[in-house]
Amino acid sequence: MALISPISSSNGKTFNQKLFSRIRVAIECDVPHIYKLMQQLFVYHDITHLLKSNESSIASGLFNSKYPHLSPVTTLLIEVSTDPFPSCANDKNNSKELDLNMPLVDEESEQFRVVKHDQHDVFIAGYVMFYPCFSSFFENPVFHMENFFIRECYRRKGFGKWLFSTMALEVARMGFSSIDLYASDWNESTLDFYKHMGATISDDFRVLSLAGKALEAYEDDSN
Amino acid sequence: MALISPISSSNGKTFNQKLFSRIRVAIECDVPHIYKLMQQLFVYHDITHLLKSNESSIASGLFNSKYPHLSPVTTLLIEVSTDPFPSCANDKNNSKELDLNMPLVDEESEQFRVVKHDQHDVFIAGYVMFYPCFSSFFENPVFHMENFFIRECYRRKGFGKWLFSTMALEVARMGFSSIDLYASDWNESTLDFYKHMGATISDDFRVLSLAGKALEAYEDDSN
Repeated sequence: MALISPISSSNGKTFNQKLFSRIRVAIECDVPHIYKLMQQLFVYHDITHLLKSNESSIASGLFNSKYPHLSPVTTLLIEVSTDPFPSCANDKNNSKELDLNMPLVDEESEQFRVVKHDQHDVFIAGYVMFYPCFSSFFENPVFHMENFFIRECYRRKGFGKWLFSTMALEVARMGFSSIDLYASDWNESTLDFYKHMGATISDDFRVLSLAGKALEAYEDDSN
Repeated sequence: MALISPISSSNGKTFNQKLFSRIRVAIECDVPHIYKLMQQLFVYHDITHLLKSNESSIASGLFNSKYPHLSPVTTLLIEVSTDPFPSCANDKNNSKELDLNMPLVDEESEQFRVVKHDQHDVFIAGYVMFYPCFSSFFENPVFHMENFFIRECYRRKGFGKWLFSTMALEVARMGFSSIDLYASDWNESTLDFYKHMGATISDDFRVLSLAGKALEAYEDDSN
């Protein structure tokens, strides 16, 4: 039961005073939400021209790969609700409650409603996606962080730090050597966030890709 | 039998007029050579301070991973010899012969001798290492090119182009969407090579990593 009754408006969900949240591993029925989050991530970083994936390819890549030898991808979601989540004895860090100084309005709440929680209002606030891979640089394998995003109305509340830390703790516990990631060059607040979380920028490297027609040309030339 | 008798000197192998070569997939007994190539790669890019792997971790990462869910890594080697390699009917592009305008001296030949070819002198000239992974950017998975290196005395003879093309053709045939790679920011000749091979530089991105004590700190904080 909600400690404080929420006010819902036609412009989305308003949270008053209390915001309950938890981190959980995404499952296949979360794919439509994951893809919406991904679209917002690409808009945020001003790289929508690079987004060639779609809901079906995300579902295949995360849950039903045609390529059985690909490293499995882990997606962690932050869920928020007006009601407390069932507590999990295994890990007290997986849920928390936040006292709001002022009401929080989620204007896009309906797009991010988790439908399986039919008794409660539960919404997706952000996600992180990462997978393990070999590295020639380190003694142990590393994780590549593919996506990291907190929806705008839930920023500056510690959710990003919590989600990133949850991933980093898991990676450290597994004995992996590094979390590698890309960040937009121009985005100072994002770079500052990752630096604050302990990451260092490898100024030595530039990112390149061989894709599209340039890659297909190799097959054409061989025929 | 060699078409032209090679001259061996105390400073390594000298190839006169003919150089036979082939590309093959590396196997576990190649690990000592792969690690030597990797060390030279890190010297070439002036990033030896970033090399934390070793022969044992390379062997484990490529052939006996403790982490069964990691994507398999493919390493292709270029072998060179004074003698022709057995021809392979499946793929005529996997071997070729080169007419040398002037003698080619491989001063480190003994370090890179392939011991199993006891009737012939066979040496490793270079390698490429790549593995498949999920990508949120594309509809299909991509390959990450982890390492690419041609030993100095074998450069400017088309080996780099041949090795890169062999990998790219394989990736294109498999229907993957991209080959992603890093390159040293300052190394214009390397960047020019990849651009010539069709790759584009993603100026939008910087590479970050959370590693070492900064990563371990997450585990310490949780205790």
